[in-house]
Amino acid sequence: MSKNLTKRAEDYSKWYNELVVKADLAENSGVRGCMVIKPYGYAIWEKMQAQLDKMFKETGHENAYFPLFIPKSYLSKEASHVEGFAKECAVVTHYRLKNAEDGSGIIVDPDAKLEEELIIRPTSETIIWDTYRRWIQSYRDLPLLINQWANVVRWEMRTRLFLRTAEFLWQEGHTAHATEKEAIAEAEQMMNIYAEFAEEFMAMPVIKGIKTESERFAGAVETYCIEALMQDGKALQAGTSHFLGQNFAKAFDVKFTTKEGNQEYVWATSWGASTRLMGALVMTHSDDNGLVLPPKLSPIQVVIVPIYKGEDQLDAISERVAPLVKELRAKGISVKYDNRDTHKPGFKFNEYELKGVPVRLAIGQRDMDNNTYEVARRDTLEKETIHADEVVSKIEFLMEDIQQNIFKKALEHRRTHITEVNSYQEFQEVLENKGGFISAFWDGTLETEEKIKEETKATIRCIPIDAKEEAGSCMVTGKPATKRVLFAKAY
Amino acid sequence: MSKNLTKRAEDYSKWYNELVVKADLAENSGVRGCMVIKPYGYAIWEKMQAQLDKMFKETGHENAYFPLFIPKSYLSKEASHVEGFAKECAVVTHYRLKNAEDGSGIIVDPDAKLEEELIIRPTSETIIWDTYRRWIQSYRDLPLLINQWANVVRWEMRTRLFLRTAEFLWQEGHTAHATEKEAIAEAEQMMNIYAEFAEEFMAMPVIKGIKTESERFAGAVETYCIEALMQDGKALQAGTSHFLGQNFAKAFDVKFTTKEGNQEYVWATSWGASTRLMGALVMTHSDDNGLVLPPKLSPIQVVIVPIYKGEDQLDAISERVAPLVKELRAKGISVKYDNRDTHKPGFKFNEYELKGVPVRLAIGQRDMDNNTYEVARRDTLEKETIHADEVVSKIEFLMEDIQQNIFKKALEHRRTHITEVNSYQEFQEVLENKGGFISAFWDGTLETEEKIKEETKATIRCIPIDAKEEAGSCMVTGKPATKRVLFAKAY
Repeated sequence: MSKNLTKRAEDYSKWYNELVVKADLAENSGVRGCMVIKPYGYAIWEKMQAQLDKMFKETGHENAYFPLFIPKSYLSKEASHVEGFAKECAVVTHYRLKNAEDGSGIIVDPDAKLEEELIIRPTSETIIWDTYRRWIQSYRDLPLLINQWANVVRWEMRTRLFLRTAEFLWQEGHTAHATEKEAIAEAEQMMNIYAEFAEEFMAMPVIKGIKTESERFAGAVETYCIEALMQDGKALQAGTSHFLGQNFAKAFDVKFTTKEGNQEYVWATSWGASTRLMGALVMTHSDDNGLVLPPKLSPIQVVIVPIYKGEDQLDAISERVAPLVKELRAKGISVKYDNRDTHKPGFKFNEYELKGVPVRLAIGQRDMDNNTYEVARRDTLEKETIHADEVVSKIEFLMEDIQQNIFKKALEHRRTHITEVNSYQEFQEVLENKGGFISAFWDGTLETEEKIKEETKATIRCIPIDAKEEAGSCMVTGKPATKRVLFAKAY
Repeated sequence: MSKNLTKRAEDYSKWYNELVVKADLAENSGVRGCMVIKPYGYAIWEKMQAQLDKMFKETGHENAYFPLFIPKSYLSKEASHVEGFAKECAVVTHYRLKNAEDGSGIIVDPDAKLEEELIIRPTSETIIWDTYRRWIQSYRDLPLLINQWANVVRWEMRTRLFLRTAEFLWQEGHTAHATEKEAIAEAEQMMNIYAEFAEEFMAMPVIKGIKTESERFAGAVETYCIEALMQDGKALQAGTSHFLGQNFAKAFDVKFTTKEGNQEYVWATSWGASTRLMGALVMTHSDDNGLVLPPKLSPIQVVIVPIYKGEDQLDAISERVAPLVKELRAKGISVKYDNRDTHKPGFKFNEYELKGVPVRLAIGQRDMDNNTYEVARRDTLEKETIHADEVVSKIEFLMEDIQQNIFKKALEHRRTHITEVNSYQEFQEVLENKGGFISAFWDGTLETEEKIKEETKATIRCIPIDAKEEAGSCMVTGKPATKRVLFAKAY
């Protein structure tokens, strides 16, 4: 396997695109803007799914499935929602093809036009709230805590693997509550779950915050988010959780009878995370040699490569390795013993480095003689020779240590890439020369936010949850401001 | 919870429709032909998915994800495939909505017409084989063993929950092989896996067989299937596995270099099972009181209902129950302790009967005094009082016994509903009066098959794998025949 990977310092964007393809995560398909998620990439996504699903269920959520299609009229029911999503959607207008009468091939059958066009869901609030109207009558039916794993489509003109694709996979939670307070608590809880997942499983530090009005989800009263920082100094929104107020309940007439016998509109949240997380994972940890995966999400945690000449030597090594493989698997560690005779060890080393396998063991004749293994860790590329008796505990240590080490490294990168500025000039200089998050006072107006975006391409990523109240003045207008917000260029 | 379930003997079809809705499995959505799979139904589907996924992975398959959209031209590349699927597909023609200039609302933007229409996948052979052309160059790339969990759309005019819906969920395996023999072995293996899943997990006996040419998948050389028999004597196809020959390899020009250096077309299979299995599960075991679920697929395996007056008594019962719940969960048994004070025990009994929970424990004051539980099994509705010391082993026994008992019951029903006939008159009488599978000689011609279908609505469900060679004559034409085939009316 020839890596020939562009260096990050040369062209980060090119490095990313090449790496996603070469590491067998995903590739572009023959369908504009749609990707194929390859088995290795999908295996990582499955690990993410399994963990998130577990966290959702532990907090009382159940999965369900709602239709792919949304009637055009549903989308129109919530005013800001349709504004946000009508401009980039796939529209089904017909339900049949037929052979052209002039023999020119297969055409859309004009007699099979739908009475009402169907939109492929860009998100499912409308179809779900149309359903909730039937499910919710009384306070006894609340809270309703539902999640869906699904594909969604947003027509994008400029796409990039995982980061922006016309079709993507995600989960979307949709909850209904009796009170405003409970719904807000749910929206905050889900932001916290995303943050916990990002930090503990993806080893990706995130900043929790709320979006400004202009960056809010179409139809939300408040959007909570987690924001991560990529190695190139650009931010990436890694999950959002929306407090929807009573907007969708009103649009779809979902009322419930309170304990006191009154009729009230239901309070709602929705929250989602998508295959975009795959892009974030790649860009947070990987290096010029390829992927670096956190052990907790790596489909293969340990690879064992035999170094041998001839079948007899391979057989002897295989016999030595077999009980180790068994022992590691019994401990829940995923191991691959790569005894393919079609590829040389050097090729295999490259391949697993490219694919980000956290720990690589190699065993050759000298190791056989000394009862040792060569143990290499992917994150630091360090190698050492370990006695066979100690190799299991070494691997257990490395599973923890690599997970923590790459988190610390990413955290350190972020720490050195959050810059406090107090003037617009300083802001522009930092943005130009260093990137990262820039913490600055803003006067709270859309006008100023848009001016900054137009002039610098930086947006307000969030108003951090833990931002302290302080007296300041907007770096652009000089007007009074009370909190620093985080700006960055973003994916 | 009021059941008011139509009796099976009165109207089996109505019973099914009511049960699916009342047991909270699924319901119709506001979108024509599309269902909402409710949390309880989805939880059963998740258990099916988890088990099938495990069996696929154990046989070397990996998951991946391919686009939802199929360009119209792809569908046309395989001649019989387009014939089979073009007539019932959802067609995306535009990628944007806009506000009508006359203020009449949101309309499809005529300026956003796609150059080439996109079909929502009815099945993914075409998009996948377009991808495999890039993935397969050498014999080293084979076999390629891939599965996808996805939603698909086939436009159906008459739909029924789970059994026939415009959108449904399924898995589709797509494999590529170097030799014909290996591909056939794969197709057979997957039929066997489906059969094992149906019998051991769904407790649903199935007959393995091959389809006649007219019932084959559009584009297949051979279609293997498993056929189950519902309680009303109609058959249901529960999974199919297709040997595709080189049809798709030729249509998408997928060749590989053999070990000897020759260029050859790849051999293919595809295989799928869908949410239709949910309908099969319901119709195989359930009764006039509601669902009967096999313990291996039941989201709740044991429910515990306290019978109490006042909070003190409930507290005492809860204290007694807590260690039992813990012990059962430690054994991997899923338990629900339903201590809701909003519903009476009788209501709860009805609810869990309707939802098919395999074992119900009840505990009231007398049980507290005697240190017992009332144990009720859903399949036979038998109840007995068991000492607390024996309740765990009793439940473990029931998990096995209910699974086996409902399988045996279904097997017995099938045994008494396979009828050998030797004349067409007898065939029609049995079909009319008894239903079930009818085993008869057929001359092997499409003409006879279609005549029978037109006159009786029965189709050839399959030529059983284990059908023995014998000399016979077609029940309709009297022409020589060598094997009995299975006819039935089918879902």
